[in-house]
Amino acid sequence: MSPGEVPVYSTGGRLKAMERRVKIGEVVLRLAMCGLGVLTCALIGTDTEVRTIFSLEKKAKFSDMRALVFLVIANGIASGYSLIQGVRCLVAMSRGSVLFNKALAWAIFSCDQVMAYVLLAAVAAAMQSAVLGEFGQPEMQWMKICNLYRKFCNQVGEGLVSSFLASLSMVTISFVSAFNLFRLYGTNKGRGSSSYTVGM
Amino acid sequence: MSPGEVPVYSTGGRLKAMERRVKIGEVVLRLAMCGLGVLTCALIGTDTEVRTIFSLEKKAKFSDMRALVFLVIANGIASGYSLIQGVRCLVAMSRGSVLFNKALAWAIFSCDQVMAYVLLAAVAAAMQSAVLGEFGQPEMQWMKICNLYRKFCNQVGEGLVSSFLASLSMVTISFVSAFNLFRLYGTNKGRGSSSYTVGM
Repeated sequence: MSPGEVPVYSTGGRLKAMERRVKIGEVVLRLAMCGLGVLTCALIGTDTEVRTIFSLEKKAKFSDMRALVFLVIANGIASGYSLIQGVRCLVAMSRGSVLFNKALAWAIFSCDQVMAYVLLAAVAAAMQSAVLGEFGQPEMQWMKICNLYRKFCNQVGEGLVSSFLASLSMVTISFVSAFNLFRLYGTNKGRGSSSYTVGM
Repeated sequence: MSPGEVPVYSTGGRLKAMERRVKIGEVVLRLAMCGLGVLTCALIGTDTEVRTIFSLEKKAKFSDMRALVFLVIANGIASGYSLIQGVRCLVAMSRGSVLFNKALAWAIFSCDQVMAYVLLAAVAAAMQSAVLGEFGQPEMQWMKICNLYRKFCNQVGEGLVSSFLASLSMVTISFVSAFNLFRLYGTNKGRGSSSYTVGM
């Protein structure tokens, strides 16, 4: 046997079973991410409240806050992306094919990472705006607005929870695609949990 | 040769050279991250400006904004962590040892991922506060403050740039630790860039 010819399933069914679990998990996560992203867009995008104060009509809507607009756009893009990737995974599963193409693995890995980081950044920025709306920042003369727009703020809160779950799914997906990519550079060593020392 | 006995450097010096480059890159990135994190803490933590408006003294300091406090704390923790990890990498390099311990690789991978995401979230939240300070959000009655505290805002901007570079370093480090971990699950397949299809 030449050094290049390494059996893929050298440890028998264990690796095969793990690959199957990872594949199913990836599809579930991608579709869950898509659903949560759409839910976020729906919750935040339709969020509006009108209050009449001393016969003066005041309206709060999601587009009044830059961070919420960014959140809706990021979730929309990530949902569409996740749907496409989910379908790709399903097709690959039904064909029973395994990803061994490094270029494709790199492309998927890069896109997943960018999506995960952008989504998390959008959630963090929106969370900061929400905290500002709830508690204000009196030192900067930024007053809280949630005592005025209670329903608006509650719905933003629900959207933030769903968006946080969406970004957690995306982060987990990015782990899966990192796994799918970097195992192609595998050494096939260290199957146990003991520590080896190899001279360089 | 039994299936378990796979030569580590089956493709000769190429893998060895790549491993060495990755190791050196990791040390450089960890130390750069540490330096940039400390720079961020110094820039933001010492940022203060006093203005006298109609004989009324007004002071802006970083602790007036929650997001900046969070940024300083996150950068402080990440810098300390990176320093410890950088030293660990240097010791491992001087000993010429290679990481084959799955438990340790998982621990490093998890910590790196958490640090990268927390740091990026802190930067995003602080960026949102900075945009608010620069442009305000008139719909919410949150007025811009940077026309008043120009020097304060400029220094926050410098801190944000350094913090963004720090989080980019941390993100790249998290790729390296994902590489170090998941290659332990390697299939040793797909060295070329062609696509294989294996029945499941």
